[in-house]
Amino acid sequence: MRIVRFASPSGMSFGVLDGDGQVAQIEGHPFGTISFTGQRFDQADVRLLSPILPSKVVCVGKNYAAHVQEMNTGDAPKEPLLFLKPSTSVIGPGDAIRIPPGSTNVHHEAELAVVIGARGARHVSPEQALSSVFGYSIGNDVTERDMQRNDGQWTRAKGFDSFCPLGPWIETDLAALGKDPADLEITCTVDGELRQQGRTSQLLFDVPTLISHISQVMTLLPGDVVLTGTPSGVGPIRAGQRVEVSIEGLGTLANTVADADTTSTAGGAR
Amino acid sequence: MRIVRFASPSGMSFGVLDGDGQVAQIEGHPFGTISFTGQRFDQADVRLLSPILPSKVVCVGKNYAAHVQEMNTGDAPKEPLLFLKPSTSVIGPGDAIRIPPGSTNVHHEAELAVVIGARGARHVSPEQALSSVFGYSIGNDVTERDMQRNDGQWTRAKGFDSFCPLGPWIETDLAALGKDPADLEITCTVDGELRQQGRTSQLLFDVPTLISHISQVMTLLPGDVVLTGTPSGVGPIRAGQRVEVSIEGLGTLANTVADADTTSTAGGAR
Repeated sequence: MRIVRFASPSGMSFGVLDGDGQVAQIEGHPFGTISFTGQRFDQADVRLLSPILPSKVVCVGKNYAAHVQEMNTGDAPKEPLLFLKPSTSVIGPGDAIRIPPGSTNVHHEAELAVVIGARGARHVSPEQALSSVFGYSIGNDVTERDMQRNDGQWTRAKGFDSFCPLGPWIETDLAALGKDPADLEITCTVDGELRQQGRTSQLLFDVPTLISHISQVMTLLPGDVVLTGTPSGVGPIRAGQRVEVSIEGLGTLANTVADADTTSTAGGAR
Repeated sequence: MRIVRFASPSGMSFGVLDGDGQVAQIEGHPFGTISFTGQRFDQADVRLLSPILPSKVVCVGKNYAAHVQEMNTGDAPKEPLLFLKPSTSVIGPGDAIRIPPGSTNVHHEAELAVVIGARGARHVSPEQALSSVFGYSIGNDVTERDMQRNDGQWTRAKGFDSFCPLGPWIETDLAALGKDPADLEITCTVDGELRQQGRTSQLLFDVPTLISHISQVMTLLPGDVVLTGTPSGVGPIRAGQRVEVSIEGLGTLANTVADADTTSTAGGAR
């Protein structure tokens, strides 16, 4: 099933996107047994949002050998290298990635996203890990490369509002599509030009290992998202461009790029 | 006012802790105009919880010169150095800090905690920043020092479940107590022995500067917590010990230390 979250004139809801381009509205949240409201919308009449609002996005650095090499920052790690993106960085398909004022080195990073299910995950073994997974989606771990290099800690470089596009939907049954999350092609294009191309079979630490490892440290709550690392080919994006990340069986996550919106909560723009 | 969150036989609620040791239950959340349910409890009859459940805890590294010196990791940063602790790391007063299996180098880090109010904070200037603050509390930025040194990124070392004690309450009017958040004494004791002692006047980047800086990067949501950095004197804690962090005007945050609880969401302990 393709689980979406969407805005319609009657508010925000979850839904199931059918093959015929219709969205069947879900009552409440999509974990466990799904019940439908009976309302259906044409996809064209609704706005898709990030398919989940995670309490946290746990990311994994240096998880493709070719990307480790292109970054020139030493060897691949012996254990998964974790970092966090705040929930406030999440945006949906079609939303604009915002370039921070003065920044000239914001990069795309195409990634397989894993969405945790209703049981959460805490101290699970690699063998148990996949039973904690609700489904798979696409993420873009947008990164300000200069700040990443200069700060040491990656929180600022990867934590700006809008730096975590997710979507367009969560696929809960890749197997039914004849796909295996352990071997999916990932590509990223900028204005139609191919920038990144890899396969999840190249992950240094696979999905069960990542979920198990993270779950020994911090409890993964229902709806939390794990971004599994990016293949080689990362590069700059600038205002006016369009970034598309595609993963086999999961569709295409497309986002525009725009200048920062510096509207202040104190009133006015700064 | 001292805002607490507490568990009573009727569930979890917010409340106001009076000078007479009674908790007046709040209807809903404590932002904006507070309305009371009329129910009162003796503090001894309820269990205080972390006074807020933040969507994120934004922390600042190397923000006291003497701590930068003791850590021996180079100069103080030219801008605030940000990192995140996940919401799942938050525990309340009296809860146990859990030592990860095999770890022998978990440290206390006593810190002033700033709680963001109902407006949130996004692109605010230092001059506007304090109007985004709901109140002040105490935090302990518990850190696995070996992992911090080895991983490079601090997410794992500082992100374990239970590694962010907060409390015991949020003080919303330090001025009424004759106290200034810019000059409060912070101490930390382990089993009664003084380990850390500093004043918030020694902060390299003060609270308005921190909130403004963070708000240029990521939107601070209502209830989010900013931990402002730790003074010198950090050191190890082990199971069976008791850590107390005290800040002038904000009381004492006391936590026990215990071995990890490795209960799995997949059933049983691992």
